[in-house]
Parts: sequence; C-alpha cells; structure tokens
Amino acid sequence: MTILGIDPGYGTIGYGVVRFDNMKFTAVQYGAIKTAPGVPMHLRLCEIYADIGTIVDTFHPDEVAVEELFFSKNITTGIQVAQARGVILLALAQKGLHPVAYTPNQVKMAVVGYGSADKHQMMEMTKNILHLTKLPRPDDAADALALCICHGHTGAVKRYEDLR
Amino acid sequence: MTILGIDPGYGTIGYGVVRFDNMKFTAVQYGAIKTAPGVPMHLRLCEIYADIGTIVDTFHPDEVAVEELFFSKNITTGIQVAQARGVILLALAQKGLHPVAYTPNQVKMAVVGYGSADKHQMMEMTKNILHLTKLPRPDDAADALALCICHGHTGAVKRYEDLR
Repeated sequence: MTILGIDPGYGTIGYGVVRFDNMKFTAVQYGAIKTAPGVPMHLRLCEIYADIGTIVDTFHPDEVAVEELFFSKNITTGIQVAQARGVILLALAQKGLHPVAYTPNQVKMAVVGYGSADKHQMMEMTKNILHLTKLPRPDDAADALALCICHGHTGAVKRYEDLR
Repeated sequence: MTILGIDPGYGTIGYGVVRFDNMKFTAVQYGAIKTAPGVPMHLRLCEIYADIGTIVDTFHPDEVAVEELFFSKNITTGIQVAQARGVILLALAQKGLHPVAYTPNQVKMAVVGYGSADKHQMMEMTKNILHLTKLPRPDDAADALALCICHGHTGAVKRYEDLR
C-alpha cells in the first residue's frame, strides 16, 4: 500500500510518499511544494492545487493522511493555512481519495510513543523507521513522512481489529 | 459591469450577482449554495467548487468581491469556513477572476455609511439600493449583495481617482 502524507501550509506544503507492506515502511519520496510570497493568494492556491494533482498522478497513493489544524498563535496565518488545506482536500477528493486527518499529538504518539515528543525526537524516529541515511528535510517533509507512519500504524491496528 | 459577491461558508455560501452601470445598481440574481451536514468535508468542498464554477459560467461576472474572514467565536467553525473560502478563491482564479476581499466593516461603511450598522439596517439599505420589492433572503445572500454594492462603490471611487 502506498501512503501519501501532507503537512498543509500556503508557503510550504510538506509531502511524503511511503510504501507500507507487511508492517514495514519504506520511503518512496518526500519534499515540499513552495509558493512565492509576493504572489496573490488565489494564484498561490492554484499552484498548490496543481502540484497536489501532480503528486497524486505520479505516485498513485492508495490512502492519504493530512494534518489537522490547530490555531493558537497567529490567527491571520492560520486562516491562510486553512484556505490552502481546503484546496488540498479538494484536489485529493477530485482524484477519488478520502483524506484522513490526524492531530500533531496523534502523530507523535504513533511515531515516538508519547504526545509531548519534540521535533528532533520525531525526526530521529522517522529516519529510523523509514531506514533513511539522514534526517528528512525540510521540517514540513519530515512531518509529512511522520503522518504516513501514523496512518500506517493506525490503519494496521484498525485492520487487525476489523478482522477479530 | 457585472459584479459577483460571495459570502464564504461551508454549510451555506451566499452569492449575489449585480449589474453596475452609470453608477446604478440592479440585482440580477441572488441565493445560497448549501451543502449537507452529514457529508465528509472533502466532498462538501467538491460541491462548493462545482457550484461556484456553475455560477461564474452562468452570469459571467467581470469582477468578484469575497468577504474577508475574522475569527473571534468558534475557532473550529472558523477553520472550516476558511477551508471553504480557499476552495472558492481557487474556483474563481481558475475562471480567470481576481477576487477582491472586503471586511464586514468596509461593507457596512459602503452600504449604510457607518461601520457599526446592524444586520437589519444593512438589509434595508441593500433592498433600497438594488430596488428590490422585499428584503433579500437568506442573510448570506443579503451579505453577498451588500458586497457587490461595496465593490461597485469602492471600485467607482478608485476608477475616478485613477482618472485624475
């Protein structure tokens, strides 16, 4: 099964593509979509929409995990991230995918084992689980890969429970 | 010139279409896009995207005004409205339109003359300016029509200033 993970944003959108077979994870690809700061938001949203479509067409994921949003700090930035997340969900839905949302805490629990894990611990564990030779960069791509692991684990538990 | 006004939302999206010629406004159409509560968000976003496209293809607006978002009360609802707004901006941009954003205060100033006008005053003035025989309903459609008036006025002032 191929899992696509997406860490939403409007300036930088992290993505990761991971194979999950026989309870083993293998990284296929990861990186970040970037949009230029000076460009009007509606045109940046067009870029994000097109790039998500290209990623889906390239890697044909079976399932998709997208990070849930929480606003605490900058509300204006939060609105813009949410707008971009809406476009990401749309692009995925139009490709026949049903995105599953996970909170940052759920991802930390699934990858490191406790919800208060810091960024570096997350990256180290993500690197180890995916057998990468170096820490995944940028941060947004690392977050997207961690989402893939979270979805694989969560889905595996669910699939096991469905069998009982 | 045909102006499209959109009041963003995910359950109800108000829209208004107004002709603005020789400093006079005429209502062409108004109403609301509705999506069903039980449907997953990514599928509701698909409906919104398709319906905005249909409205643009039907009325061929020259310019579009979309309300700016402010979150104060329910942050979870706010995130969902912002996601829908992102999809609306995308749909408009893909039709070659460049949406202009106005705050609720800007709209009130343009329609009633002061920023603290209440909802009923707004509706009354919108009805009068557009020569409607009754108050526009639902509220979301009334807000969208008020956005059209705001954009017409603001644009007219800007056009006049550009000429000087």
